[in-house]
Formats: sequence, structure tokens, C-alpha cells
Amino acid sequence: MVIQIEHPYLMFLGDAADQLAAKTAHGIVHWRRDWCLGQLRLPDCHADLGLPDMSIAEAVAVGVRTLVIGVANRGGVVGENWISTMIAAIDAGMDVASGLHARVSDLSEVSAAASANDCSIFDVRHPGRSFEIGTGFPRPGKRLLTVGTDCSVGKMYTALAIEEELSTRGAKSDFRATGQTGIFIAGSGVSVDAVVSDFISGATEWLTPENDPDHWDIVEGQGSLFHPSYAGVTMGLVHGAQSDALVLCHEPTRTHMRGVPHQPLPYIADCIEGHLSAARLTNPRALCIGIAVNTSAMQTEEARTALLQDLSAGFDMPAVDPVRDGVAAIVDRLEAI
Amino acid sequence: MVIQIEHPYLMFLGDAADQLAAKTAHGIVHWRRDWCLGQLRLPDCHADLGLPDMSIAEAVAVGVRTLVIGVANRGGVVGENWISTMIAAIDAGMDVASGLHARVSDLSEVSAAASANDCSIFDVRHPGRSFEIGTGFPRPGKRLLTVGTDCSVGKMYTALAIEEELSTRGAKSDFRATGQTGIFIAGSGVSVDAVVSDFISGATEWLTPENDPDHWDIVEGQGSLFHPSYAGVTMGLVHGAQSDALVLCHEPTRTHMRGVPHQPLPYIADCIEGHLSAARLTNPRALCIGIAVNTSAMQTEEARTALLQDLSAGFDMPAVDPVRDGVAAIVDRLEAI
Repeated sequence: MVIQIEHPYLMFLGDAADQLAAKTAHGIVHWRRDWCLGQLRLPDCHADLGLPDMSIAEAVAVGVRTLVIGVANRGGVVGENWISTMIAAIDAGMDVASGLHARVSDLSEVSAAASANDCSIFDVRHPGRSFEIGTGFPRPGKRLLTVGTDCSVGKMYTALAIEEELSTRGAKSDFRATGQTGIFIAGSGVSVDAVVSDFISGATEWLTPENDPDHWDIVEGQGSLFHPSYAGVTMGLVHGAQSDALVLCHEPTRTHMRGVPHQPLPYIADCIEGHLSAARLTNPRALCIGIAVNTSAMQTEEARTALLQDLSAGFDMPAVDPVRDGVAAIVDRLEAI
Repeated sequence: MVIQIEHPYLMFLGDAADQLAAKTAHGIVHWRRDWCLGQLRLPDCHADLGLPDMSIAEAVAVGVRTLVIGVANRGGVVGENWISTMIAAIDAGMDVASGLHARVSDLSEVSAAASANDCSIFDVRHPGRSFEIGTGFPRPGKRLLTVGTDCSVGKMYTALAIEEELSTRGAKSDFRATGQTGIFIAGSGVSVDAVVSDFISGATEWLTPENDPDHWDIVEGQGSLFHPSYAGVTMGLVHGAQSDALVLCHEPTRTHMRGVPHQPLPYIADCIEGHLSAARLTNPRALCIGIAVNTSAMQTEEARTALLQDLSAGFDMPAVDPVRDGVAAIVDRLEAI
């Protein structure tokens, strides 16, 4: 089953403990505000997306197609009141798309309701199909992949910002999602970290198929080749994406790799060189064209500016904070290659 | 479920089309002749392991514990006569261990027989359990991993030969299997290419746990960091193994990477450097201590000798053909570090 989530969305927040539990939902609203018509919150919900509160019936009336479960639930189990909301949505003709670890399609009542109503359940963390083994065979179309010095340093945000800038300039481009939030934002994609390891590069090739020679796929990166937990995922993604361009994402205040306190961060030069070296196996023309830095945790404006100027001068490529500065400088470089 | 296959084995060859279809079974007999008491061949079987032919009843009488399906079947479907043989083995109290792509445990009749007889079915290509995410946290014990310029260049053979040489010398060591043939030979292991990609390094850490400081785990490598289809698997394996020592395996007559005719072989120097660089993320002391070359396809004795001498001199480490020369020179180097 190919994941193809129809919008508009009704955002289900359940009984989220705090705003952080609704991080995925916030990301979707940030990038696809037009698609998100309302939010549905249960009693004792402590998150708020700033959307109109809606019942299932109200959502149907305004044309919602999909109930989106973009929230981390308490204790990892799906409560009774979540299940009844999902079934009500399905009975009203909506699809359900979930970012939970547990599969909604494994809940027999919800699954039965979907069958009865000819509705779909998308468990976006779980690839609903199998893939071929990757080949690395050259294919037309251009591709950019965001890579990183670590996990959670802005690879999805940077890719979305680049795709948006390209679209604004009238270029042919698509954002290609490889993680749950990205999949909700794109409406489709593959959660590559859940693919069987033999098929990582193959799944990525499937996600970024041949295209017009002047079309850019902007591919959301995952992990880092320098992260001891996830580098296998990153490696398959780098090879499968067959990238013409890499953008390195970085968070300068980390003292160690995320989740592994004993593991130091790699040097930026090593990280660029390592990712480029891997990328060139399947695309010898791969270049690193920019550095995207999340400077939000830096103390002063002077420090931020100095860091970006130093990186830009040192590596001879644009270095920007995508949130503060936008990514126009990186896209200028992209259009020049 | 942890895979732990009990021996002695009865080797089931089905109606194998030729000797190559029984490649896995040949490997098991080569390394574990003592464990393999007999072979069971159906009419129209064109493979022969040189073992006594035995019925299920005869095998039970001599103490066989497990029926091993170490053969590629025609057309990829399990025939009726295979199923009846498996059920007969189970009814006689044996376990069944299969290297088929399709899961024997998915065959309802076989599965029901196993439940009824309290016997196990091991589908060794499929990890029967989940794993934690890898951490790269340093752990005691020493580990050697075989890596390669390509797939199918002797990584399993070299690892087994090194482990055998260490055992002969009285050193503490274990062979750690990461693929189907290796798992039958070790009786346990993890088919890492079938693990969900987020958990490759974690599965490898699980397979090679902390041990005595002077104990060596000799880990079977998979794929190559330079293979566009499988490098993600290799990367997770390299990080998870946290290797003290690497041995590079090579087949000098290949004209391209296996299965991908457009992909040239990497240079040996780049291949050593690339794998070492990855290995040092989780073990900064990692060294490459030898090169294992499969010279069987080389034309002349002079050419073989010249190549091994050149490699040994050029890289300042032992270079041997494990089949012709043994791996004593590599184990000498291992004991010196």
C-alpha cells in the first residue's frame, strides 16, 4: 500500500500532556496551515495548535478528508477515548493517518470500521509495502539531500524551506519525506528507518524516481553518518538519493551526539567530507552547497553572525540559519550548479 | 525468540536443481562435518553432500535434533513433498531450521505440527526478536570484523578460519554469525540484513555482547560500504561491532560490484580507509590487520603469489588466500596487537 494521505486534515491531539507531545502536529500546521482546518482535543488535553476546535461532524461539514494523529500519547497505549474518536471519524467517511509507534491498523475495531466504510488507515511510521534492492544506477532528474552532524538538527525544516524557495521561484521541485512529520506534510513518503535494512537504498530510489532533467527532488535526511545508532539508515539514504547536492545541517551548542552522551560531535569538515565521499559512490558529481545552522540556542546575535560568517568563509559556501535568514543564499548556489 | 539451533543436523536437500542450489548446505558440512549426520534427498534431487542418505526414522535413531533446510528451492515456492517431510521430522521430535526466504513458520500445517509436538521452527533469515537501538558505548572484550571490497568475497569463510585458528591456539573466541549459512554453522546469530534499519547497529551490539578482556568475537561481515545496494547494512554492522581489528576480504578478478554492472570495484586503499574511518567512530583503536584474497579465479600460481606479496608489502600487513594459505599469518598479527 502506497501512503497517499488526502487533505484537508483534522488534527487530533487526544489528551496530550503538553505542547511538546504535539510536536509533530505543530510541524504540520507550520508547513501546511491551509490543509489543517481544525483540531480535536479530548478533555485534559494540554496542547493547542491555535486552530478552531471541531467535532467530527463539524469537520465533515467543512470538507475534512483525514483525521491526523500527530501526537505522542501517554504511556504508549491507545486509550479507549482515542479509539472511539477514530471510529467516529471513519464512520463519517474520513481516513485516519497515524504517527504512533503502535499500528492503528492493528486495532481490530478501528480496522473493521475502516473496512466497512471503505476508508484507509495510514500508519506512517510503518512502510505499507515492500521495496526492491537499490542499484545506484544513474537516473535523470536532480536531487538534493539534507545531511547532518547529528539527529534533530533541522534536516526536515531545511529541506522544506529549500523546496518552498524553489517553488516560489517557479522551479520544478518536490519535497520527499523520509520521516513521520515529513510524510504528513508531503501527504506521502517512506519512513526509511522502519524499512528492512537490505532495502534502505532501494526504498530511497523508489521515493525519488527518475524525473525531468531540470526537476529537483528535495529529500529529507535522517540521522548522521557519524551517529553510532543510526548511521546505517543515513548511509542507505545517501546512496539511494544519488544526490547532486548536499546541505549540511548543524546545531552548534550540542556537547554530544543526541541520545549517546559518550559520543562527541564530529567536526564539520569531517562531516562534509564523509557524507560527500559516500554520496559520490552513486553520484560522482555530488557537491555540498551550503550549511544550515540552527542558532536558536546561541546566546548573542554577535555570536550567531560570527559563526555563520566563519563557516561561510571557511568552507566557501553559504551558511545560514534557515529560520532567521531563510535559504535563498543556498538556493542561489543550487541554481548556479 | 532467540535462534539457538540444536545439532546434530539432518541436511534436507529437497529436489535441488544442482550443487549450487545446495550452497548453504555445502558450507555447513564444510565447517561442521561432525554436526551433519546425514542428508535427505527427494526424487529428482541433483545435489549431493557426500553424507549418508537417511530417512527421518533413521535420523532419529542416530540422535539427529534438527532438520536443516539449507537449499534454494525451485521457483521460490515450498512444494507439497517438502512440507510432508518437515511435518514428519517434527512428528519425530525434531526442530526445523530453514534458510528459505519464505517463512516455514507461516506454513500453517507445519506450524501446527510444531505446536503440537513442542518443537521449534527457526527461520534463520528472519530475526525472531526485536532489538534495542545501538549506542556505541564501549564494552569489554575484543572483536574482529571481516569487511570486503564487495559482496561474496569470502567474509564468512575468513571469519570462520580465523576463529578456528584462534581456537586451535587455545585462545578464547567465538564466531558470530550475521547471515543464514553462518547461523547454521554457529547454531545461532542474527541475519542483520533482515533487521529493521533503525536497529542494525543495536542488533550487532546484542550479537557481540561484553565479554572477557582477552576474548575475541570474530564477526562475519556483510556487503561493503562501497556497494550501492547494501552499504547501510554494512555501516550498522561496522558501528555495532565496535571492532578492534578489521580484515579486508577481496576477490581480484571482479570487473564490477556484484549485481550492479555499472558500479566499479573500489580501490583496496580506499576500502581499507573507508571501513577503518567508520569503525573508529565507535572504537578509535580499530586497525586493519590483514587482507584475505580469494585467488581461486586467478590464472597462474605466479600471478597469485605476486599479488599477495604486493598487497602485503604495499599495505604492510599479511595478505593471504585463506583457502590455500590458511590465516595463521593474520592471527599472528592479531595476537600481536
